[in-house]
Amino acid sequence: MDAIRKAAEKAKEASYRLQNLPVNLRNQALGSIIKQLQERRQEIVSANQLDIKEAQSTGLPTPLLKRLCYDNSKIEESVRQLESLIAQEDPIGRVIARMELDQGLILERTSCPIGVIGVVFESRPDALVQISSLCIKSGNAVLLKGGSEAKNTNEALTKAINHAIVKTDNRFKDAVQLLSTREEFRGLLTLNDLVDLIIPRGSNELVRSIQASTKIPVLGHAAGVCHTYVHEDADLEMAIKVCFDAKCQYPAVCNAMETLLVHRNIAQALLPRLADEFKMAGVELRGDIASSEIIKVRPAEEMDWWTEYDDLVLAIKLVGSLDEAIAHINKFGSHHTDAIITKNHVSASKFMDLVDSSSVMWNCSTRFADGYRYGLGAEVGISTSKTHARGPVGLEGLTIYKYRLSGKGQIVADYVGENARQFTHRKLL
Amino acid sequence: MDAIRKAAEKAKEASYRLQNLPVNLRNQALGSIIKQLQERRQEIVSANQLDIKEAQSTGLPTPLLKRLCYDNSKIEESVRQLESLIAQEDPIGRVIARMELDQGLILERTSCPIGVIGVVFESRPDALVQISSLCIKSGNAVLLKGGSEAKNTNEALTKAINHAIVKTDNRFKDAVQLLSTREEFRGLLTLNDLVDLIIPRGSNELVRSIQASTKIPVLGHAAGVCHTYVHEDADLEMAIKVCFDAKCQYPAVCNAMETLLVHRNIAQALLPRLADEFKMAGVELRGDIASSEIIKVRPAEEMDWWTEYDDLVLAIKLVGSLDEAIAHINKFGSHHTDAIITKNHVSASKFMDLVDSSSVMWNCSTRFADGYRYGLGAEVGISTSKTHARGPVGLEGLTIYKYRLSGKGQIVADYVGENARQFTHRKLL
Repeated sequence: MDAIRKAAEKAKEASYRLQNLPVNLRNQALGSIIKQLQERRQEIVSANQLDIKEAQSTGLPTPLLKRLCYDNSKIEESVRQLESLIAQEDPIGRVIARMELDQGLILERTSCPIGVIGVVFESRPDALVQISSLCIKSGNAVLLKGGSEAKNTNEALTKAINHAIVKTDNRFKDAVQLLSTREEFRGLLTLNDLVDLIIPRGSNELVRSIQASTKIPVLGHAAGVCHTYVHEDADLEMAIKVCFDAKCQYPAVCNAMETLLVHRNIAQALLPRLADEFKMAGVELRGDIASSEIIKVRPAEEMDWWTEYDDLVLAIKLVGSLDEAIAHINKFGSHHTDAIITKNHVSASKFMDLVDSSSVMWNCSTRFADGYRYGLGAEVGISTSKTHARGPVGLEGLTIYKYRLSGKGQIVADYVGENARQFTHRKLL
Repeated sequence: MDAIRKAAEKAKEASYRLQNLPVNLRNQALGSIIKQLQERRQEIVSANQLDIKEAQSTGLPTPLLKRLCYDNSKIEESVRQLESLIAQEDPIGRVIARMELDQGLILERTSCPIGVIGVVFESRPDALVQISSLCIKSGNAVLLKGGSEAKNTNEALTKAINHAIVKTDNRFKDAVQLLSTREEFRGLLTLNDLVDLIIPRGSNELVRSIQASTKIPVLGHAAGVCHTYVHEDADLEMAIKVCFDAKCQYPAVCNAMETLLVHRNIAQALLPRLADEFKMAGVELRGDIASSEIIKVRPAEEMDWWTEYDDLVLAIKLVGSLDEAIAHINKFGSHHTDAIITKNHVSASKFMDLVDSSSVMWNCSTRFADGYRYGLGAEVGISTSKTHARGPVGLEGLTIYKYRLSGKGQIVADYVGENARQFTHRKLL
């Protein structure tokens, strides 16, 4: 615990140094990481092969083995991400607003780094490179905890990153630190005087358990129970195409559709055709009584409306109105991503206004909810919280702002009482 | 507990209805509150006199009695605040960004209400009117808990507000609810599935105890240990004037100066004159050894650097450099408001970049850190947190955003693999 507090204190000190490093220096550090990844290619890939060998011997399932792999092509992917990050606009030091409070008394609101970020991620070593470089670009210090099965890879990557950034400028020292045990990360969660934000990247269970055990703000989502609602006036062909994509294009992810809501008046026309498509793709259908009268489904229980299958399973429910669909989504959904298929823009607007989710969509697939597709560049994660950052979170989610007031000796006493000076409150930007 | 969950559920339902009420309806509701406050003037003032009488009989100290008072002039103040709030721009439904992801696939980021806000405030009944009206303007539902000594006043005010808003439109039902016991508010703090944000307005102890006992995000500040640093090149007259204002203009508040840092090279010229001014105003000075060699001070202990006196007491410390001043502020300060007095804009910039506080100031009094003076209109509170909202928080702090994606049947499968469609990611706003 003393060691982890020490590490967090060092990160805090680093975060203070990072606050005004010019963007060309931060970009130079990212460029230096690219060089190190390329120069140490052999070392990194060997470390990863060691991890994979050990994981195979302990019988890690194939999908997890795949996520663990960090080979030459993954290095190239990291390099491309770093290049795109270098090209992105500087997220800090941006003047968001400027106001003259009175003659010669100028208030600015400027973006700045958050400070110290604690990140826990499971398996994928590429997440380490991605998050570290997002933090460097945004002037934050970061404490990382990866999966123990990627230990050698994560250590090799952290070594490469640190060599790169400290060589660029000594002030980057301690900006990227790797924690080695789960206990250390648990300890980090108690240091709310030093750590400003926690980002968990992993299973719903991981996110929930972290949210339950820290006073530090947590950025992330614990569940993705996404809906598509097909309104009575929907274009049939479009509805079938979009619903199929939302469920089947990649069912294991948080923005895949889990529940399909269908207006009663279009169910007879839509459901049989959709059921055929889904059956061919191996999707198990669970439906309410009304839908079971039209297609063959396993009876749905209430638990199905709450469930994120992350698999080829779909819950289906008929509704009598747009309002009923909205109420169902707000009650059972996870406020992640929900879509409506309709020809009517008034119905679409109402749906998008009243569904309380981080992404609301009209006539397209829920699978679009993603930082890359939204044009944010690299993604910190997807947030379903109602404060700070919501939906896919890019660089901006790693920033906050401060107020900077510059005067010429002004005092508040002059603005109170009789003959008080008046504020001009003139918006300059 | 069942009752409080019920109340929060009703608030949640109300928050869903409020999400797309047009701004003219929200403004109309605020106008209707003005009318009700004026029509029920007698009823409200009588209720307040009852509270004051009871408080006097239990021996409430005079400053608290003063804060408890809600008389005709306070009603007029509330009316003025409501009028200014009506005049403010609509904080919700604003398109913050717009991007074409591909032809006919348009992404918008729009501001929206947070949802359900839990507010606890001590004594001052005018806070009830202010916070309720900020929530109505921003489309949020609110659950309020006031001080028990203001029970009758708070009930009369809530009755007036509810009559006003429900008369305007029935969808405002349950948007403003008053909790009557402390236990109810404690219960509210556990309802993180229903309540989206907690705003405590009161003592540091109250804020800290709430932060320690809820998983819901808390907006506020627990302490205001504000500094003024007088650099070696400061204009002497300006330094004296600004320091006096920062300490003495209203010492009981969070943005008053608690510690004065003085560069060693200007201490001989500055401190004796400043000490004279402070002594005349009855300020007790506590200094480090170096300052005690120049002026008469009580010896400061380490605890003094951490302390928010909220009183006519000032800690004084000499430093050898700008860096030392910055390090002291970041270590002992509360990240609230800190100022530098200097003629040099490079020193000022460095100070404002590296001091990690919600407001950083150059050549003016820390007392300016306030929502009204910053031109935000009414103030929700001052935040020292590093996420969501920082510094004086106005209407904007009660909003978040959602992503709205509108398409023509686009699916993600078309954007992956060979012959994949490319995103255009064309910024439209």
